[in-house]
Amino acid sequence: MASVPRVVVIGAGFGGLAAVKALARAPVAITLVDQRNHHLFQPLLYQVATAALSPADVAGPIRSILRDQDNVHVVLDRVVGIDRSARDVCLASGKRLTYDWLIVATGARHSYFGRDEWAQHAPGIKSIEDATAVRSKVLLALERAETETDKARRDALLTFVVIGGGPTGVEMAGAIVELAHRSVSRDFRTITPHCSRVILINLASRLLQTFPEDLSAIALANLEKLGVEVRLSTPITAIEADHVVAGDERIPTHTAIWAAGVQASPAAQWLDAAADPAGRVVVDDALHPHGDERIFVVGDTACCAGPQGVALPGTAPVAKQQGQHAARAIRAAVANRPAPPFHYRNFGNLATIGRSHAVIDFGWSRVSGLLAWLIWSTAHVYFLVGFRNRLQVGANLIWNYLTYARHARLITGAHAAPAVSISQTHDLFKGEKHDRAA
Amino acid sequence: MASVPRVVVIGAGFGGLAAVKALARAPVAITLVDQRNHHLFQPLLYQVATAALSPADVAGPIRSILRDQDNVHVVLDRVVGIDRSARDVCLASGKRLTYDWLIVATGARHSYFGRDEWAQHAPGIKSIEDATAVRSKVLLALERAETETDKARRDALLTFVVIGGGPTGVEMAGAIVELAHRSVSRDFRTITPHCSRVILINLASRLLQTFPEDLSAIALANLEKLGVEVRLSTPITAIEADHVVAGDERIPTHTAIWAAGVQASPAAQWLDAAADPAGRVVVDDALHPHGDERIFVVGDTACCAGPQGVALPGTAPVAKQQGQHAARAIRAAVANRPAPPFHYRNFGNLATIGRSHAVIDFGWSRVSGLLAWLIWSTAHVYFLVGFRNRLQVGANLIWNYLTYARHARLITGAHAAPAVSISQTHDLFKGEKHDRAA
Repeated sequence: MASVPRVVVIGAGFGGLAAVKALARAPVAITLVDQRNHHLFQPLLYQVATAALSPADVAGPIRSILRDQDNVHVVLDRVVGIDRSARDVCLASGKRLTYDWLIVATGARHSYFGRDEWAQHAPGIKSIEDATAVRSKVLLALERAETETDKARRDALLTFVVIGGGPTGVEMAGAIVELAHRSVSRDFRTITPHCSRVILINLASRLLQTFPEDLSAIALANLEKLGVEVRLSTPITAIEADHVVAGDERIPTHTAIWAAGVQASPAAQWLDAAADPAGRVVVDDALHPHGDERIFVVGDTACCAGPQGVALPGTAPVAKQQGQHAARAIRAAVANRPAPPFHYRNFGNLATIGRSHAVIDFGWSRVSGLLAWLIWSTAHVYFLVGFRNRLQVGANLIWNYLTYARHARLITGAHAAPAVSISQTHDLFKGEKHDRAA
Repeated sequence: MASVPRVVVIGAGFGGLAAVKALARAPVAITLVDQRNHHLFQPLLYQVATAALSPADVAGPIRSILRDQDNVHVVLDRVVGIDRSARDVCLASGKRLTYDWLIVATGARHSYFGRDEWAQHAPGIKSIEDATAVRSKVLLALERAETETDKARRDALLTFVVIGGGPTGVEMAGAIVELAHRSVSRDFRTITPHCSRVILINLASRLLQTFPEDLSAIALANLEKLGVEVRLSTPITAIEADHVVAGDERIPTHTAIWAAGVQASPAAQWLDAAADPAGRVVVDDALHPHGDERIFVVGDTACCAGPQGVALPGTAPVAKQQGQHAARAIRAAVANRPAPPFHYRNFGNLATIGRSHAVIDFGWSRVSGLLAWLIWSTAHVYFLVGFRNRLQVGANLIWNYLTYARHARLITGAHAAPAVSISQTHDLFKGEKHDRAA
């Protein structure tokens, strides 16, 4: 072992960042590898997708966040494998990082349950690019509806389908219905955004399955009051560019959004470890995969049994506490002290519904309505990384609450119209109009 | 003519928007066509490219800006031609818009003076996508330098070349040198951003050629004080992925930015009108091309003689005043009154240099230094469209001034690292590292 123990952390999400910060005063040399230069505050990403916040409001450069922590070296690179015998992390650049302890916190992506062809028509929201692509898709549908003269096609353009009734799906449906019904209601001339439909499709028999049943019922009532049509116990059997098949119903739509399932990063393959069906690495109560005490797996990429034997959910608090546990265990090992096993402390489970409702399950208590929304807002702004972001997101949330404003309504990227050029004969608008956003 | 005269405005930049607003109370039916859904405040776009502002800070949805103006219909579409005999504007969607009066305000793009192959290595900054692409390019160069072990390659990664010494080039060079020297100075471990070089290359013998000579000298002195190396009277003869040839000098660099020339939109072809070498439509003192009183051409796409016979520059004030003139002339025509010819009133010419210097030429007076910067800031925040943007950009400018913060340092889009996937063998980092940002 080198004189200063080397800790490699893969991933600067909630788990990885919490681990690095908890090692701030430890006598170790940390290397934090991420394929992105920014930490992303995923719980607010749906607000970027619905034009309420800008990307920079919910993301901060990893280097800035760790600016004052001298024992960490940030590397922008992509992990392609882990060599456990050599204790090396293999990077896409060809470099290798040798570790004395390794923390794997590589998160998760969408899962289409084997139907990857659905991804092109029903994007999920996991990255900044995902969020701005969904934002362009929703806004373009409204623009196209404004100039569409055929009623059936216009109705399809004004139908938004959210697939999945977990917190993300519930939050997206509430935010889209508000964007379509209220924020843009005065901006269009031929369409009335009140005619738009938002349909939330859920396979399970209730929304927010990880919450108590009464909160699920409240969430359902709140969503329906906002104008969202909720279909429960309804499987999706097809997703195409111009329709979705939910149960027996064919729903014409050009805007489907996926919030139904996730798949862990390929850490299980890298580690040659046992994985659950979602690809998460099965870990013991010290967060080690197959008993390897040099390695911790935390966050969305770990399958860790909770208090009742049920696997802990893929939430930010779980990831943070696991990252902090790994750091504590490493500090104990460096000091030749034994480390206690990991115990998850549940401080509450939150989901927000539209602009003034939320549900919170504290375990010992349940809160819903405006009070829950205020707690939700405060907690999210508080946990946002960086003082400036807190200030700005707080100001934006209050502003949006007061005005229904959606200031970040920019259509950019591949979906935006091309630059003016008479030589450009490729025409996004021509032919079947409903192919355009496909 | 229809009972209500139809006015078609192409382009929602400064000129088009000013025309539409000046027609707010006129008895006309306006259709505003733009290929984008947002108006862009181009003078601050370089701040997006250097991570100080977010895209939504400098762009607002056209529909929101014109929300309360009932006589305008906004259409997201792309113009492909103008049929003057039928008085029709032909759209990419196949639709046609018939006009009684037409205002063409389609702006300009970069011009590489026939060397279009330079575009891939030296992007310009005209759109949101341009700005975020340049931002990613600059930030990625710093990231790659951090892990580069070869000194020559690291030096090349830390060399930033700005081509063009007009206001945009001067502003970009000042902003990049501050980003590289100050804002990120504490964020990196192996590179010291102080070692980075910013080189501004100008073909003319002085910077800011449209300003008086003493202000050019002040701009030069201020830029050099900030640490920018300025090369005057220096032509560019080659731009490749890993170097630029300026005069006799081969400058190894991976980040070249183009601010040297613009080319008008193809309006001259659409109108079959005379154009100047930059492609701008030659108009008379009433802003009509070849005497067609139904058509006005305004802003960057018009070549209009100024007070001394010199063509007016492509600036926001010129575009705004021309748009307002066209609106006035249409209102006069509707009322059967004669319209006076267009006269440009020069309220001042501004350029900013870094975080606390600017130069302003009022014609009757010249200002430089901190006072000029304060006037520059106030004017830009004031002219930003929409109360919220004003508030937010004002807050951001003050915050950045006090802290040197660059909060929007996000590497996104095609240049960002790809999603984690072990099946993904394509490797952005592999091989010749300097090809990566190409």
